[in-house]
Amino acid sequence: MPNKYEELRAFFYPKSIAIYGASNTPFKFANMHLFNLLSSGYNGKIYLIHPRESTVLGFKTYRSVVDVPDPIDLVLIVAPTRVVPQILEDCGKKGIHHVICVTAGFSEIGNVNGRRLLKETAEKYNIHIMGPNCIGVVSTDINLNCTPVPLPPPKGGAGIISHSGSWACHILFTIDEKLRLGISKIASVGNEVNTDMVDFLEAFEEDPDIKAIGLYIEGLRRAKKFFEVAKRVSRKKPIIAAPIGQGEAGMRAAQSHTAAISTPATIMNPILKQAGVLVTDSPSEMLNFLHAVTSQPLPAGPRVGVVTVGGGPGTTIADLCEKYGLKVPLLSDSLQNKLKDILPFTASTKNPIDITFDMTWDNFYVKIPKLLVKSGEVDSLIFYGLFSMEKWFKNIIQINNPALNSIKDLIDMKLFEGSHVVMTDMFKSLIRTTRKAKIPVLFTNLFLSRTDSLIEFIQSHGIPLFLPEVAPKIMSLMWQYSHYLQKTNQTSFE
Amino acid sequence: MPNKYEELRAFFYPKSIAIYGASNTPFKFANMHLFNLLSSGYNGKIYLIHPRESTVLGFKTYRSVVDVPDPIDLVLIVAPTRVVPQILEDCGKKGIHHVICVTAGFSEIGNVNGRRLLKETAEKYNIHIMGPNCIGVVSTDINLNCTPVPLPPPKGGAGIISHSGSWACHILFTIDEKLRLGISKIASVGNEVNTDMVDFLEAFEEDPDIKAIGLYIEGLRRAKKFFEVAKRVSRKKPIIAAPIGQGEAGMRAAQSHTAAISTPATIMNPILKQAGVLVTDSPSEMLNFLHAVTSQPLPAGPRVGVVTVGGGPGTTIADLCEKYGLKVPLLSDSLQNKLKDILPFTASTKNPIDITFDMTWDNFYVKIPKLLVKSGEVDSLIFYGLFSMEKWFKNIIQINNPALNSIKDLIDMKLFEGSHVVMTDMFKSLIRTTRKAKIPVLFTNLFLSRTDSLIEFIQSHGIPLFLPEVAPKIMSLMWQYSHYLQKTNQTSFE
Repeated sequence: MPNKYEELRAFFYPKSIAIYGASNTPFKFANMHLFNLLSSGYNGKIYLIHPRESTVLGFKTYRSVVDVPDPIDLVLIVAPTRVVPQILEDCGKKGIHHVICVTAGFSEIGNVNGRRLLKETAEKYNIHIMGPNCIGVVSTDINLNCTPVPLPPPKGGAGIISHSGSWACHILFTIDEKLRLGISKIASVGNEVNTDMVDFLEAFEEDPDIKAIGLYIEGLRRAKKFFEVAKRVSRKKPIIAAPIGQGEAGMRAAQSHTAAISTPATIMNPILKQAGVLVTDSPSEMLNFLHAVTSQPLPAGPRVGVVTVGGGPGTTIADLCEKYGLKVPLLSDSLQNKLKDILPFTASTKNPIDITFDMTWDNFYVKIPKLLVKSGEVDSLIFYGLFSMEKWFKNIIQINNPALNSIKDLIDMKLFEGSHVVMTDMFKSLIRTTRKAKIPVLFTNLFLSRTDSLIEFIQSHGIPLFLPEVAPKIMSLMWQYSHYLQKTNQTSFE
Repeated sequence: MPNKYEELRAFFYPKSIAIYGASNTPFKFANMHLFNLLSSGYNGKIYLIHPRESTVLGFKTYRSVVDVPDPIDLVLIVAPTRVVPQILEDCGKKGIHHVICVTAGFSEIGNVNGRRLLKETAEKYNIHIMGPNCIGVVSTDINLNCTPVPLPPPKGGAGIISHSGSWACHILFTIDEKLRLGISKIASVGNEVNTDMVDFLEAFEEDPDIKAIGLYIEGLRRAKKFFEVAKRVSRKKPIIAAPIGQGEAGMRAAQSHTAAISTPATIMNPILKQAGVLVTDSPSEMLNFLHAVTSQPLPAGPRVGVVTVGGGPGTTIADLCEKYGLKVPLLSDSLQNKLKDILPFTASTKNPIDITFDMTWDNFYVKIPKLLVKSGEVDSLIFYGLFSMEKWFKNIIQINNPALNSIKDLIDMKLFEGSHVVMTDMFKSLIRTTRKAKIPVLFTNLFLSRTDSLIEFIQSHGIPLFLPEVAPKIMSLMWQYSHYLQKTNQTSFE
């Protein structure tokens, strides 16, 4: 059996890339790929191929890959549809085995002959084509952002395979803005002329850097093989799928889009579920799950401890935990008494633990988590209300009233419990406590962008931060997967 | 019948406010209210009351409201629980009729006597108490942010009433960061000692500035009255409720929290639905709906036109529209032919309309919406993929390669279609087209914070921008409400 990881490796670890389609029209599509290769820190060689111009954007060009004197590991085609077959011939002659074909206009618009020609040429020369009608790849190991979106993601354990080129690269916007999900690799498989989602799933199975896999999936060209592979992989690494193109209009759109034999939900969902693949209809939820599962241990059971600075959000989290099949157990009297010892009389210790307006962060970040973890009464934690006091400080600073000068001086001196250093130290303690006990913890807040130093600290350390209504579902998916592993392991012993 | 709007008006239009609880400990809770009153632009008078200190934070203090020589419209109490009854006595003697009692520690922890004393004193002096255990009010008309969160919202048509103090003010974080929802008033009703959610619902019914109402609702103390009022109001203004405290743990939390006789979902939901109140279990969804419904006309029918720059997100939107009961109709041949005339051959014109990698923004923002609106084939529009090219430009600027100097000069000159002026002009045309035709339009994107000039432009003009998986549900809620109005009007003519 060929090792798919080795077979497809050059898509993610090319030492050199040739680009067809970059042009002197400044903001054409292929130029975006070029700019992103240049800006992301990719250290390999880049060759521009152009049929007529001798320089493109100030760079030397070649007429064909055949004319390049050095070896080429990967070719990116963003050229017009009609010239793609000849380019592929040239790639074959040059001995190139990996081609990303961004160019569209094949089977999705009924160009069946064009597709067949691609496939035949690829077979003749043993070329692996990603696409056509795809967007490119991301491989953070070598700082490779070969997509049009100029926002390389942080390094991490998530691998994503997408039929949709837009989902494959537009997620970089949301990752950059607020999620800070650590990515290992993204593959945009497009119309799958001779490599498909199943191939990349097998490659990601063997990839030591990939801890969890997300699929934006429009249809299954090889349903039986997919099932067999996904079932095997899902016992090693969590897989989550966001099926796309499931309704009438959605299937119509998927057809126009990647010529996917769009698989209806009635067929797709049982296949996915039986294969141990988690399913979501929200593309963001997939990313949120990948973030949680690559940064946190799996919960050993369904019992959640909810810790909150405010009653309403804590209650909402508790409601949603129960809605999604988790438990928010009433804490034992002895544990509640220990909590009462440190909390004000207006606080609630039952679970959710609501510290109310008490701003004693040492309780929130240090003492409460230690007591909960030690108790053995919960399998996971969800926190609501993480922030530094920066927004408050900024507010006070801007008030034009001399009466406040002394408090402004105090803010300037940064000596408060709410200051960055003190908050981050307490936060680190919380992370140590939960990691040591292998208890997953999700943090929630109503501001997720990196506009607050504590938020920035949390996100830059790869720790997930979600909206409060999002975390329960994500923890539920983590527990679903954990439970699946428990059940499948148990089955094998029966 | 007393007019609740007039009766409760002083909570939102006080000419003077006295605060109990501000202190020389810099970052105590009541001080946050004080700082926010000072920074939000409130022009009324503020009096600090303190039992011992002669100045607090540099401001003169009084021993009691009785000692203040001027009239006081509103009192904010953030003092210890035990002194609240005496403060209320003083308020009564001073002839004050509106008191916000942030202080907790009454019925939610079993202090039934304390609660009765509050109620009796209030009745003796005809005092309207908001709370206890609430957070305060927002009233953007007079720049009043009497909450602890230092982020006053934009002015607009939303009115929010919340049992949860946290939800009432923490939403200001998300509104500031990404939503830019226009708010008229927020009332945090807390434990409802003698004014409750129903009273404020009646006040908001009469409030000419409030176009739509959101409720964070834990329980119904007066279910029958609520039903009667909500049913009347919902025919004039949309109401959306996020019930909180519906599960076992949630009810336990709500009990600890506001002593709400937390109403289970099996009872609450039929009451809400029969009264024409929309229901959501997501606090953000409530805000998103309020944003859409206060800025857009209602859809006359369920048919959505989806316009996208990328296949995957367009397909996801179409799937979710159908999931939530909307239709994404196949467009007529004649309309498709008109679209084909302006779009590249790789585009899809069926609906979703996918312009693919064609970056002709004039099609996206101007020509396609005009054709769709004119056709009469859709009742609403959802767009995916709004952005300026700033992120791309910033990326190019930072690439350290002299070959790119000429393209950097071009960026510097801001002459492209992707530049701010051109994009915003096209965007304005789209808004004019849809407003004129009374077609609601929702915009979606994967980055929502104000880190892009077009996003900033859109949000600062009160136009909603959501994640692509969010918009279909919001449009569905708009259609549900529109359909409800159509049905109820019809009923009255039968």
